[in-house]
Amino acid sequence: MIIVMKSHASNREISFVVNQIEAYGYRVHLSQGTERTIIGVVGDDRPLENHNFELLSGVEKVVRILQPFKLASRDFHPEDTTFEVRGVPIGGTKLAIMAGPCAVESRSQLIETAWAVKEAGAGILRGGAFKPRSSPYSFQGLGEDGLEMLAEAREETGLPIITEVMAPEAVATVGKYTDIFQIGARNMQNYPLLLAVGRTQIPVFVKRGMSSTMQELLMSAEYVLAGGNRNVMVCERGIRTFEPATRNTLDINAVPLLKQWTHLPVFADPSHGTGKWDLVAPTARACIAAGADGLIIEVHPHPENAMSDGAQSLKPERFAELVCDLRRLAPVVGRTL
Amino acid sequence: MIIVMKSHASNREISFVVNQIEAYGYRVHLSQGTERTIIGVVGDDRPLENHNFELLSGVEKVVRILQPFKLASRDFHPEDTTFEVRGVPIGGTKLAIMAGPCAVESRSQLIETAWAVKEAGAGILRGGAFKPRSSPYSFQGLGEDGLEMLAEAREETGLPIITEVMAPEAVATVGKYTDIFQIGARNMQNYPLLLAVGRTQIPVFVKRGMSSTMQELLMSAEYVLAGGNRNVMVCERGIRTFEPATRNTLDINAVPLLKQWTHLPVFADPSHGTGKWDLVAPTARACIAAGADGLIIEVHPHPENAMSDGAQSLKPERFAELVCDLRRLAPVVGRTL
Amino acid sequence: MIIVMKSHASNREISFVVNQIEAYGYRVHLSQGTERTIIGVVGDDRPLENHNFELLSGVEKVVRILQPFKLASRDFHPEDTTFEVRGVPIGGTKLAIMAGPCAVESRSQLIETAWAVKEAGAGILRGGAFKPRSSPYSFQGLGEDGLEMLAEAREETGLPIITEVMAPEAVATVGKYTDIFQIGARNMQNYPLLLAVGRTQIPVFVKRGMSSTMQELLMSAEYVLAGGNRNVMVCERGIRTFEPATRNTLDINAVPLLKQWTHLPVFADPSHGTGKWDLVAPTARACIAAGADGLIIEVHPHPENAMSDGAQSLKPERFAELVCDLRRLAPVVGRTL
Amino acid sequence: MIIVMKSHASNREISFVVNQIEAYGYRVHLSQGTERTIIGVVGDDRPLENHNFELLSGVEKVVRILQPFKLASRDFHPEDTTFEVRGVPIGGTKLAIMAGPCAVESRSQLIETAWAVKEAGAGILRGGAFKPRSSPYSFQGLGEDGLEMLAEAREETGLPIITEVMAPEAVATVGKYTDIFQIGARNMQNYPLLLAVGRTQIPVFVKRGMSSTMQELLMSAEYVLAGGNRNVMVCERGIRTFEPATRNTLDINAVPLLKQWTHLPVFADPSHGTGKWDLVAPTARACIAAGADGLIIEVHPHPENAMSDGAQSLKPERFAELVCDLRRLAPVVGRTL
Repeated sequence: MIIVMKSHASNREISFVVNQIEAYGYRVHLSQGTERTIIGVVGDDRPLENHNFELLSGVEKVVRILQPFKLASRDFHPEDTTFEVRGVPIGGTKLAIMAGPCAVESRSQLIETAWAVKEAGAGILRGGAFKPRSSPYSFQGLGEDGLEMLAEAREETGLPIITEVMAPEAVATVGKYTDIFQIGARNMQNYPLLLAVGRTQIPVFVKRGMSSTMQELLMSAEYVLAGGNRNVMVCERGIRTFEPATRNTLDINAVPLLKQWTHLPVFADPSHGTGKWDLVAPTARACIAAGADGLIIEVHPHPENAMSDGAQSLKPERFAELVCDLRRLAPVVGRTL
Repeated sequence: MIIVMKSHASNREISFVVNQIEAYGYRVHLSQGTERTIIGVVGDDRPLENHNFELLSGVEKVVRILQPFKLASRDFHPEDTTFEVRGVPIGGTKLAIMAGPCAVESRSQLIETAWAVKEAGAGILRGGAFKPRSSPYSFQGLGEDGLEMLAEAREETGLPIITEVMAPEAVATVGKYTDIFQIGARNMQNYPLLLAVGRTQIPVFVKRGMSSTMQELLMSAEYVLAGGNRNVMVCERGIRTFEPATRNTLDINAVPLLKQWTHLPVFADPSHGTGKWDLVAPTARACIAAGADGLIIEVHPHPENAMSDGAQSLKPERFAELVCDLRRLAPVVGRTL
Repeated sequence: MIIVMKSHASNREISFVVNQIEAYGYRVHLSQGTERTIIGVVGDDRPLENHNFELLSGVEKVVRILQPFKLASRDFHPEDTTFEVRGVPIGGTKLAIMAGPCAVESRSQLIETAWAVKEAGAGILRGGAFKPRSSPYSFQGLGEDGLEMLAEAREETGLPIITEVMAPEAVATVGKYTDIFQIGARNMQNYPLLLAVGRTQIPVFVKRGMSSTMQELLMSAEYVLAGGNRNVMVCERGIRTFEPATRNTLDINAVPLLKQWTHLPVFADPSHGTGKWDLVAPTARACIAAGADGLIIEVHPHPENAMSDGAQSLKPERFAELVCDLRRLAPVVGRTL
Repeated sequence: MIIVMKSHASNREISFVVNQIEAYGYRVHLSQGTERTIIGVVGDDRPLENHNFELLSGVEKVVRILQPFKLASRDFHPEDTTFEVRGVPIGGTKLAIMAGPCAVESRSQLIETAWAVKEAGAGILRGGAFKPRSSPYSFQGLGEDGLEMLAEAREETGLPIITEVMAPEAVATVGKYTDIFQIGARNMQNYPLLLAVGRTQIPVFVKRGMSSTMQELLMSAEYVLAGGNRNVMVCERGIRTFEPATRNTLDINAVPLLKQWTHLPVFADPSHGTGKWDLVAPTARACIAAGADGLIIEVHPHPENAMSDGAQSLKPERFAELVCDLRRLAPVVGRTL
């Protein structure tokens, strides 16, 4: 932490700030410039984060130097985190492809899609049983019935499953069925929920909030890690910008930058990242080319009748074509599929 | 809903879309232009929202005409909603000022602040007992102890209280103490939570998410209203933009525009809207000048030692000055304080 | 400037950076922390801005401490800049109201509007002769004929005029007529244009670009100031955000923050800041309540037939009502009108 | 164009709107819904764009259906535009790689870089002679001397050149040297400049403004096309968002979406799109994987001493590695390099 004093700060003001910091047991480095005096705090000053030095008389601003996350950081854990979900490797050389419908709508829709995505090359089945919907009048998911259908689809196809959990009180129920907890974009900063999944050992897939910075995404991952659950993935899924032509702006920069900052596996969601099925394949290729460890993609056998997010869902045959492309692309970036 | 066909759509494609809509029991108006054919759906087509007509062959885009909210809309409820919280009027001519510390830190801090804001002219006491914090290592609030202190402060000063509830399972507990549920910006789209507070009759104060549109804010209010709780307030609290000099960008336009769209009382939060105490007074005046029904403002007797959000908290004496300004400003916009 | 070294930077890397800085004639303050070494540069290091110390081996990031503008800064010029335009005071206690049509369309339209805004209380007449339009097929302004009409309107009404200049080669021509050069939002970073108006002594009104930071706005003012022209005003006119309900988001925070940072007069444009005539009056009041030194407002006698920006133009009678409101509001913030 | 009437609009208000439209010679389609009456305008209503029907009594909103660009649209020109610049193909199967320093700094720097990028596989040399800089105190480019050095580098290496032009009055001078005019992001809506390059036959490379929509980008291309110059390229170069970790957010969605909307060649600039050299290679691969027709990349032999944008410049050896990657990637997307 560096404290920049105002240009006309008095010696008394400077001393007062220095004394405050030393009172918390930190050493200080003073740098008397020609325009500004700068006070550096020596050591891991994350515990000082709540102290409002900017309010002390004569202080112009406070610059925080350390990233606020520790367990999620490569500084503290340089090697890539890898693990397996029912035998499917996550985070290593092999790309992980999660696919399936936005919402579980019926047993037949789900089983049909599950077989289709498996044949096309997906390793994990996605499907929502509890759906966050901006309108109270929209389909809200099948609830526990949907979870049972997901478990059945896993039984039949052998694909592990990922599904969203939306409330801390639902963690126990969803945890009985799912192989991976999905934390949706709208819940990225639902801290009671992050704490609840952090107390389990089920892998957690944290999606970036639509206006969350990469740093905040890793702070949310930190909540889960700090709870003792080390099987965490993070996922870029598009951010909200001024551009009206797409549902979100897929932040492709986040893929390589998150890989630099964190050892956790980095996924991307080109379905929500674009909101348009005909942009999914090109941007899915882009994410792999940029270094993503895997993708999560919405696939629906009849998108025009989908009960949610049909506009961004691929038909199974188009998904199969995309996986073919990705198989040819993978070796270019040192990956397999 | 209006469906715009592609410039080269065939008659067969057009008929197919028309048949689909008619199959749902709607009438259709066909407009054959020189460049595009346009299909209008007659009637309240909100139930068609989930149908992905954009995916049908030959469709270029679908334009939704109706606002998705009903209960929150002035179209369906032209007069302003007004109600009282323990005798304090909300939503009428008299401005409502909520003030207090970001977080309840101790009994003495709270009582001192409560008396100070009451003397300055606030009508309602704010204070957080459960705090959403982006870092798992930050102070998370005093929990139920904090709620008890709030109730005590109400006892002593007579001020009704508002405090945040963060999880559906906490609604019963928080509801035992609070006079108003605050739904924080990060929870604006926490639908299980909105449903839970909608099942009570305790007034609900919904803050706009930091990247939520005004329409989405009113959809979240709609969740509460649809549950049967009609005592809902909405609050502009700053949105996330590219500007790095302030914590958020207070969307002053939202104040008059929300007043046009909804009959619900419209508040503003200049503390979070700016993130800097020395911008709070000018922007608070601005919000009242723009037509807000009230304000929520962070006040702390010793901001430099506040355990959260000290940088944006006013000292009691500055808050008192601000209330003086507002008293002089209120009549200019036909209000009292 | 502060240079933060990576956590594992070697002594050799640290020395190399130090030597580089010293080679440019600066002194260095070294702060050896437990996690990071931090190198502070002593003195006015603005000239080092182009040096890419972040690229040197072992460097994690470079934090710039000084604001990049000097002439525009209150640090170097603490008192408010004030001046007069044909007797109309700018930047002092008295508010300056500029009003008129978006575009000059005809002699009669302009003269009618000029008299109307004068009677309502405006001090300066605005009107565009050269119009930046996003479509090449839209009305582009009357050009020099429009300038002549503006001069005529000044002659008749006595109101000084402000009009936009769009290219360096037009500065001489526009300068023959106008009392104030307007630099439009799209040209805020048109540096050849800023240099050209900086070489004149005609006052310059710089509008904030729609995605420019406040710092960048002051850097554009700095271009003009550095050319020797000290009569500069800056204007908040709405920024581009994700919110689709308004044309722009008026950044009300910018008004008091710019007043802190700069001694230059700070204006606001509620017409472009909202894009909707029925939001202009409430936000105009808000800007004055927040401390703006003046406003620029679009007024058109027949907005439904305006050749540009009709949707955000006030009719003269509504503008007159607004000025009445502002007259009552001014004393609350220590101003007159 | 579709005009949506307010829910309580009277028949008189509806008739008035209809009459207005018919007075301009358009036919109207009336759709009387249960909640709203909707008025559709039949035909190419782009000429009505300036009419403010939203201001007529009883109108709720106006929805524009047609894209405002024509010459740039695939609707009017379905096949890809292709052309050659001194024998280098643009817009076809073969990818076009433009590379070189941000700014021309000296003859030796330029020639060294030119040979290096040529050997690595670039087809076109970039280099700025006139530099838009946010600070008046920064290096502003070598001007015409820089243009001469570019011409010399072309002479020596055979690479055609691209360089920025910043003012209409400079078009003649820059046009004497350059093979392609670059319109920088800050000048995307500098209409006098777009008109000036539109009057030449030299190819024009239009970069997206940092807060411009894709539609606005194509409107700027339309300005050039409407002037008679059909050799236009557009370039995605990152947009401004709330994310502070990167200089811009490269909008990868724009690459495939622009390819759908326009027949013009679509380029991407991963240097400005990220602002960090170590993100350039992964995002450059991403852009090609997403379907870009080419790239423009900053390369500097000694980035740490570059006079501008060093932080985002690749060293020649890293650029060569990137081109190797792209050669292996090209066939996956049906391209050659």
